[in-house]
Amino acid sequence: ARPRVGYFFSGKPARNIISEKINNIKVDEIKAVPVVIKEGSSVYDAIVTLFLEDVGTLFVVQEDGSLVGLVSRKDLLKIAIGNADIHKIPVGVIMTRMPNLITVTPEESAYDAAQKIVDHQVDALPVVKIEQEGDKIKYRVVGKVTKTTITKLFVELGKA
Amino acid sequence: ARPRVGYFFSGKPARNIISEKINNIKVDEIKAVPVVIKEGSSVYDAIVTLFLEDVGTLFVVQEDGSLVGLVSRKDLLKIAIGNADIHKIPVGVIMTRMPNLITVTPEESAYDAAQKIVDHQVDALPVVKIEQEGDKIKYRVVGKVTKTTITKLFVELGKA
Repeated sequence: ARPRVGYFFSGKPARNIISEKINNIKVDEIKAVPVVIKEGSSVYDAIVTLFLEDVGTLFVVQEDGSLVGLVSRKDLLKIAIGNADIHKIPVGVIMTRMPNLITVTPEESAYDAAQKIVDHQVDALPVVKIEQEGDKIKYRVVGKVTKTTITKLFVELGKA
Repeated sequence: ARPRVGYFFSGKPARNIISEKINNIKVDEIKAVPVVIKEGSSVYDAIVTLFLEDVGTLFVVQEDGSLVGLVSRKDLLKIAIGNADIHKIPVGVIMTRMPNLITVTPEESAYDAAQKIVDHQVDALPVVKIEQEGDKIKYRVVGKVTKTTITKLFVELGKA
């Protein structure tokens, strides 16, 4: 019988132990609180919210709370240096819109989330629950996974 | 004698194997290429460089190449929504200036770097070599470690 001391004597390579651990952590366990904004809010309001909440990405939702897009610091910087009146343009005009968003579900692993961030070169993923309403599919934002989330997890794993 | 098959039979808890691995990776092995800009460049030029190079942070150097500060996407967004003429203001005016920068050396570990990023809530650390010139200490930027670097490393570790 395996000794019950919480130690591994399985003869697995260290690499597999690390990979197994990383693949066993669920998005649901590590997700952070998302900051959302309404589609009709101005770009200026979005920028102010970004600073007040001290986040890098805002998730854009409809009146019923379903996810329709996101705006990043980069999107907002791009519009801010143009000649546009940022008090008049709604974020809905400049956001990245569904279905072009990269999302993750609570059941996916931390590894899956990190890989999506790297592969698609994004800063943040909305964690979504997919809901069917009649013949319409809606995405409810229940969290976010960002490069900060992954960096914090890395530090957590590195603690002796 | 220990079997030479590349397997661990050391009886270490999985946690320690992960932590040991993360603490043994040196900044020198994972560092990315830094993008630098001169102190006298305009804020506008800095923003353009940020987009062209597709990075989140620029390191500001003096004529002799030594590090004097950094500007982030957040710093640039803040100034861009103000009433300032971004074509006239030099980045040197708005940057975070040495010695208020959080830096890392090539000899420190990936864990050290990630912990600095989390503790000081920054997106990027310049990797510096410290050089003494007479009685002056100079910092030469030889790389950067960002949340992206750590996220990529996390994916690398998670691969089976």
